[in-house]
Amino acid sequence: MDQIKERIGQAAASIVEDGMVIGLGTGSTAAYFIQALAKRVDVEGLTIVTVASSHTSEKLARELGLSFVSMDAIDMIDITFDGADEIDPQKQMIKGAGGALLKEKILAYASRELVIMVDSSKCVDTLGKAKVPVEVVQFGHHLTQAHLSSLATSCTMRTRGDGKPFITESQHFIYDLLVESPINSPALLDQQLRKIPGVVETGLFYNIAGRIFIGYNDGTVKLLS
Amino acid sequence: MDQIKERIGQAAASIVEDGMVIGLGTGSTAAYFIQALAKRVDVEGLTIVTVASSHTSEKLARELGLSFVSMDAIDMIDITFDGADEIDPQKQMIKGAGGALLKEKILAYASRELVIMVDSSKCVDTLGKAKVPVEVVQFGHHLTQAHLSSLATSCTMRTRGDGKPFITESQHFIYDLLVESPINSPALLDQQLRKIPGVVETGLFYNIAGRIFIGYNDGTVKLLS
Repeated sequence: MDQIKERIGQAAASIVEDGMVIGLGTGSTAAYFIQALAKRVDVEGLTIVTVASSHTSEKLARELGLSFVSMDAIDMIDITFDGADEIDPQKQMIKGAGGALLKEKILAYASRELVIMVDSSKCVDTLGKAKVPVEVVQFGHHLTQAHLSSLATSCTMRTRGDGKPFITESQHFIYDLLVESPINSPALLDQQLRKIPGVVETGLFYNIAGRIFIGYNDGTVKLLS
Repeated sequence: MDQIKERIGQAAASIVEDGMVIGLGTGSTAAYFIQALAKRVDVEGLTIVTVASSHTSEKLARELGLSFVSMDAIDMIDITFDGADEIDPQKQMIKGAGGALLKEKILAYASRELVIMVDSSKCVDTLGKAKVPVEVVQFGHHLTQAHLSSLATSCTMRTRGDGKPFITESQHFIYDLLVESPINSPALLDQQLRKIPGVVETGLFYNIAGRIFIGYNDGTVKLLS
């Protein structure tokens, strides 16, 4: 699987052009993309600038010598490259298993294009086998959970290895929702979830993805425009 | 004006019943309500419990000896008493001039009833003269502002007296939006604002208010059911 993800990251990095502002997603495939991008910068001397959706990706980018700026310094991202937990034929997605959904969506929304990098196991006919992460403010979170639960078959707070609540980089909690599969309209579900006070962001992404790189077990990577 | 607000607070406190869980709003009228409630508890020996939408209201409640619990300790609020910046005949409101809109909405949404206390100057035919506060995560906030601006005629970051950004109790920024007056559909505007990644909450409240106490310059307080 690592080899597949490495190839996806390399294929995706190949479309970066000189002078671009690049948004860095978060996750294992995004990490391979960052490595491949750093190699291209080294070898070809590309002048690019990166911003990141997490401290993890920022750290990796800095270690690899990529030019890195804070979000405050840019007005527009050319392409953000990111992974997904599930993606359907309409390019609707569930994201956020890594906990960076809020920053990932802010980056995506600020980008001319969001390029998605997935292995073929993430491609589904309809969304809903993966849990939908929902980022929630800490104040009154169990009341928010009660409202979330009315829209889900299960709704559990994400915890760290030590059992304590997982806290996002923006100091929020995450609840993972299993909803009645399949999710026929991610847009409607997203709207219902957003109406609940305390909900900051959902892992439902739609009407946003551009090109998709899909890696297969035979080692090939296909580009879906 | 203070005398009017005091009378509104007293009138509102009169509907509190023994045994209730009470949500405390934030603002000058809410402060008078808290004082009147504490007086009733003192004089009548009511057994009530309070939760608050801000540290300011929590501090006042504690100082006045009201029984206070954290939001984590309760499942449901009987009545939340709060003010509003503008309210129209359909009980649609703009709230958040005090910066507590997020917690106020979480309290309201967890309450059997939201009772609103306003002086008559806050009653308008249509919303939109007051600015609509929007609570926004700090990460990439100027990108969020750019998206907010596309829905507003002006969109300015709220600052403190010293010119630094106003930061909410949940560590977010607030942008104050002046939108094309009047706001024909607060629900639609709320939905459009919420779709923007980085938006945590808006000051548009609708389909949520129960009874309204309105204070007039002649010293009368009317109750709108």
